Amino acid sequence: MIPSKVSLVDVGPRDGLQNEAAQVSTAHKIELVRRLQAAGLRAIEVASFVSAKWVPQMADGAQVLRGIARPAGVVHGALVPNLKGLQAVLALPLHERPAEIVVFGAASEAFSRRNINCGIDESIERFAPVVQAARAAGLKVRGSISCALGCPYEGEIAPERVGRVAQAMRGIGVQHVGVADTIGVGTPRRVQAAMEAALAHFPLAEVSGHFHDTYGQALANVYASLEMGVQVFDASVGGLGGCPYAKGATGNVATEDLVFMLDGLGIESGVDLDALVDAAAFIGGVLGRKPISRVSNAVLAKRRAAEPAAAA
Amino acid sequence: MIPSKVSLVDVGPRDGLQNEAAQVSTAHKIELVRRLQAAGLRAIEVASFVSAKWVPQMADGAQVLRGIARPAGVVHGALVPNLKGLQAVLALPLHERPAEIVVFGAASEAFSRRNINCGIDESIERFAPVVQAARAAGLKVRGSISCALGCPYEGEIAPERVGRVAQAMRGIGVQHVGVADTIGVGTPRRVQAAMEAALAHFPLAEVSGHFHDTYGQALANVYASLEMGVQVFDASVGGLGGCPYAKGATGNVATEDLVFMLDGLGIESGVDLDALVDAAAFIGGVLGRKPISRVSNAVLAKRRAAEPAAAA
Repeated sequence: MIPSKVSLVDVGPRDGLQNEAAQVSTAHKIELVRRLQAAGLRAIEVASFVSAKWVPQMADGAQVLRGIARPAGVVHGALVPNLKGLQAVLALPLHERPAEIVVFGAASEAFSRRNINCGIDESIERFAPVVQAARAAGLKVRGSISCALGCPYEGEIAPERVGRVAQAMRGIGVQHVGVADTIGVGTPRRVQAAMEAALAHFPLAEVSGHFHDTYGQALANVYASLEMGVQVFDASVGGLGGCPYAKGATGNVATEDLVFMLDGLGIESGVDLDALVDAAAFIGGVLGRKPISRVSNAVLAKRRAAEPAAAA
Repeated sequence: MIPSKVSLVDVGPRDGLQNEAAQVSTAHKIELVRRLQAAGLRAIEVASFVSAKWVPQMADGAQVLRGIARPAGVVHGALVPNLKGLQAVLALPLHERPAEIVVFGAASEAFSRRNINCGIDESIERFAPVVQAARAAGLKVRGSISCALGCPYEGEIAPERVGRVAQAMRGIGVQHVGVADTIGVGTPRRVQAAMEAALAHFPLAEVSGHFHDTYGQALANVYASLEMGVQVFDASVGGLGGCPYAKGATGNVATEDLVFMLDGLGIESGVDLDALVDAAAFIGGVLGRKPISRVSNAVLAKRRAAEPAAAA
């Protein structure tokens, strides 16, 4: 039942950096993407076309898309919050566009209202013309169901609500759906129920898991999803991206920790763990802090221990 | 198949503190045990009777055992490395003794030789009179199979070797066996194979999991063990105890993170998560650092955010 291959989407350059307080230069973002590609990542979320006023960190999306290398087989994605964001994507020259866009819909009514100032149904309706125009332009559209396990305002979210959003996304032409545990409160059995609700509306290959590690549950939730055959997961190099709802808490699951588990399970991801740790160390250096990843910390600690002592 | 109840053994005061560089006072250790008991922990490893010369942190085992309260239903354990250690335990007045002792045997020949200077077979033989005397004195004997998933010198450990140590421990009268991933390299399927090997020699209720979170895999490994029906797990409050083989890396899985998962799975542990976070914050304060636990960091961050701002 467990898949023999898994596709990883590194969301570090977008979802990760977006939640980092320190502004990262365009050149550093491009270098991070290069290192992720060198480590074997074949899907990377690299930019967001949200308002630069709201998220200054993401203001250079077009420049990042212009600067990154585009090896064959690598898919770049960009978050698009609305028609204006899509217009910015479509204004790019063809060879600078991302292959995929990501649209968001919350499974929590209260979260949707506080986050984008409209209810769930309306948020999906608003995306309909975005999805249509994106697909007409040849872009693949991924939908992300945020707060799929819990909401900072409403608490636990029932799987039926995940199913409803998945169905609505399917209805407007979204081609892939991600079950996103935005605040990291999910545990394995509840995650399986949410996944099942999404799988009622999308084929297995087009349902992914996006688990935050705020409460340390992310890898257990990935494992529970693997047991259902789920084969696409988001993760963030170095565990980039704190939790916007609890300053000082952990955000995205670290790609390294996930790759370590996949390697141990004999599941092919195409990612080289050592090169990935290098990428995590690189962006950690840029941000001036240690990676949040357990694997990177352990590997870097072992590398330090193996270094010859500096001459006194 | 997943159990409805799980017993947690908090090893923080022993396995945790033993790996902490800063010396913790006897009074602080006793207070930590008190807080763990108040949080609902019913099994706590509180002391070690290793040589004070080798592990100064554990030199006050007898005083800790004398100072702790002993509510009905709470079981205290102590590590006993040899006959001399057991003699020290048996020299205590009856009402100051632990109810259980823990003996160790490695599943790795190289680790055994480097750690205790003898091979696996000889290490088990040496424990035979210890187990016999302990049981004659009415103490329960738990065995811990260290390096059950991997060894810093040998790499991967095959499940058959775990089975061999479990069988040998059973042969000398050990009553419970713990499968210990000392360096945290296990992943779910390999953990299940190691558990299965131990279960060939001990009943389900007498096999436990002890997973270090060095590579972030501990909770996924607990979940995989729960799927086999395993119902006893070690964990360490606040994630106390670094990794002796990689300075700066993570050691024991945090009890809070484990309890969060059990709560989410609807599995009864009897532990109150908020009180446990208090205990983690307490010992973190004593040690002058943040808990390693994801849950404690998230809960403490949320508590800070909810506090009224201090008067300027």
